[in-house]
Amino acid sequence: MAFQWAKAGMVVSVADIIQARQRISDFVLRTPCAYSQKLSMLTSCEVYLKLENFQMTGAYKQRGSFNKILQLSDTEKKRGVITSSAGNHAQGVAYASQCNGIDATIVMPRYTPLSKIEGTREFQAKVILHGDNYEEAFQKAKELKKEHGLTFVHPFDDPVIIAGQGTIGLELYEQRADLEVLVIPVGGGGLIAGIATVIKEVNPKVRIVGVQAEMMPSMQKSLAAGKVTLIPSMHTIAEGIAVAKVGKHTFPIVKKYVDEVVTVGEEEIAHAVMILLEREKKLVEGAGAAGLAALCHDKIKGVHGKRVGLIISGGNIDITLLSRILERGLLQEGRLANFKVVVPDRPGVLQELSSIVAHHEANILQISHNRAFSSAQLEEAEVEFTLETKGHASIREIMASLQKKGFAIK
Amino acid sequence: MAFQWAKAGMVVSVADIIQARQRISDFVLRTPCAYSQKLSMLTSCEVYLKLENFQMTGAYKQRGSFNKILQLSDTEKKRGVITSSAGNHAQGVAYASQCNGIDATIVMPRYTPLSKIEGTREFQAKVILHGDNYEEAFQKAKELKKEHGLTFVHPFDDPVIIAGQGTIGLELYEQRADLEVLVIPVGGGGLIAGIATVIKEVNPKVRIVGVQAEMMPSMQKSLAAGKVTLIPSMHTIAEGIAVAKVGKHTFPIVKKYVDEVVTVGEEEIAHAVMILLEREKKLVEGAGAAGLAALCHDKIKGVHGKRVGLIISGGNIDITLLSRILERGLLQEGRLANFKVVVPDRPGVLQELSSIVAHHEANILQISHNRAFSSAQLEEAEVEFTLETKGHASIREIMASLQKKGFAIK
Repeated sequence: MAFQWAKAGMVVSVADIIQARQRISDFVLRTPCAYSQKLSMLTSCEVYLKLENFQMTGAYKQRGSFNKILQLSDTEKKRGVITSSAGNHAQGVAYASQCNGIDATIVMPRYTPLSKIEGTREFQAKVILHGDNYEEAFQKAKELKKEHGLTFVHPFDDPVIIAGQGTIGLELYEQRADLEVLVIPVGGGGLIAGIATVIKEVNPKVRIVGVQAEMMPSMQKSLAAGKVTLIPSMHTIAEGIAVAKVGKHTFPIVKKYVDEVVTVGEEEIAHAVMILLEREKKLVEGAGAAGLAALCHDKIKGVHGKRVGLIISGGNIDITLLSRILERGLLQEGRLANFKVVVPDRPGVLQELSSIVAHHEANILQISHNRAFSSAQLEEAEVEFTLETKGHASIREIMASLQKKGFAIK
Repeated sequence: MAFQWAKAGMVVSVADIIQARQRISDFVLRTPCAYSQKLSMLTSCEVYLKLENFQMTGAYKQRGSFNKILQLSDTEKKRGVITSSAGNHAQGVAYASQCNGIDATIVMPRYTPLSKIEGTREFQAKVILHGDNYEEAFQKAKELKKEHGLTFVHPFDDPVIIAGQGTIGLELYEQRADLEVLVIPVGGGGLIAGIATVIKEVNPKVRIVGVQAEMMPSMQKSLAAGKVTLIPSMHTIAEGIAVAKVGKHTFPIVKKYVDEVVTVGEEEIAHAVMILLEREKKLVEGAGAAGLAALCHDKIKGVHGKRVGLIISGGNIDITLLSRILERGLLQEGRLANFKVVVPDRPGVLQELSSIVAHHEANILQISHNRAFSSAQLEEAEVEFTLETKGHASIREIMASLQKKGFAIK
């Protein structure tokens, strides 16, 4: 394969990425790029999934971490590394350090879910809980770095990290050189900058689309402003791409190589997580499902019938969050229903209600009968149902039956 | 490899299984037998997962279906096949029929979840909803078989089906001949009969353990009685192994080759599903997780330190059910908490409660303040919390803080 070297001026070249691949290949899985029949039917595209959730740490981040850590000097290795992260980067750094016998310290915000803390400790890293948010954890890490002479491993804004993530681009080109569109989640921009550098240098016709959460469109805003722009921190279920300020190294690369950046809403991300689990049997985190969310909700124009590669960046979703996403998804699809019925306050009425519900083959999950609290009239009571149903049509039928029997739906 | 042929008298021989493998190999995935570091640490065994959830239909059932359908005569093929199933067997038969251009009719009970119906229709099968339970669907299928001269494809009690499932045993022996224990979910007995036939003939020292749901221990009861014994139908979340009566063909094979059959409870199965999802990032149905449940809850004696193969039989779990399993699992691990507090019925008290909860870094998911309904005194009210917490220790701390401030926990 004859790669064309990147033009002067860019901090990461295709050569850097090829070297990174040689360096990290013993530690990083060459993940499959798998055709999905079900998602292709669903989206009217030819969909390929680059499954970075298959990596040992459950996400692509270890590519960059290994590329960084394998290049440290002996003195740096002896002193150890530090980073701040509550997510996949923490595990990437911890795993790369463990494999190389290096001490790693990870500063996480105090509210970090236990599963993430334990996932990082499993790789023998020292976890320090500090601060109420990422920024405070980051400051603490900077202090400790100075105090102990540690090497800071940035989650995205480092040419060495970008080159590591870019190895995905090399694999993609070898696995499916005929992909026409690549859809890549964007947080700080390290992943998309690396992949775009390879792909656009070898085949500029491939369309590269970044996806951000609507709640945190830092790259989209920066591109619109023509410069790196800080945006307010908001909560998103795609916490892996919640970055308030993109990198000074990643920004110019994205500006040069990426065709467009689109955004997806919270419900759209949740729905994509559910689709990947239900249809593909794949556990994917919010950030990793962002590309499918964009495809399913028509955020990318003109892709129908095209060969589209989705980067499934990671699978580390907290089960508490997943449980909430599934509940919301079931509500959205009408497979769970929650509504209140105003009923006359007399004996036997609950039985009457239940028999109507049973007749429609719905399953009562929860029921609460509220007499005194409701805004209903004095002789009336309120019954709140949570039902397992067969879809929106079934919910409409149940409601119609209830109304026909004289019950008011609130 | 020199296989020893099965003794006369058994309806399935190793030769049948080798022939089945040749027959079906173009249509069935040779699934990985993957070492799991995390589950090995968790169970103090050396754990290998035979991942049948990777099959196209999400379960091992298609092995038997293909072996059956590929042996039909041209007349039988032209007439079509029929079966009754609400689960993986339905999809196995539908898929095998589709690949061979054969009409398939599947009778399912009326209450079958929509996802299972659609999963079967995706393979072009004709789905008929009939009856309130499996038995009624089965009778309907038998009627239709007679009426239209169709071939009935039994889910387990057919030597041809058993031989198909047995191909897993051949793969296992090639992949890891050094496994010392095999743990296999048991419903009607087709899967374990097939695998045990191969394994015990080639290496009788391998210990073969069957696992059933405590709610439906049909094979265990039959073995104890020395004959096929009908047990009452009960609900279990491992609906894939909920069979009231094991097969007349499978029973003697299991009796001859299987060392023991253990049972696992509903909570244990739910917990295993959650572990596979959280630690292994694998979506596995209740039946498929039964083996891990047995291992985690010490149902199999003397396996510590041994090389244990778990048959992960399928991944087709309904998302509604998964959502409930996760909620239950989170409650069990103390990552969700639900309790009631009796409070004086005066202004500001809710704020006081919330601040205590917030101080312990717990997240309030739901709160309900009940004045009139409770059994509390007249000047008291009851507050019910649902909290996202960091584990049992954290819940105890919150409760202690509440009690210290004079609130009674119910």
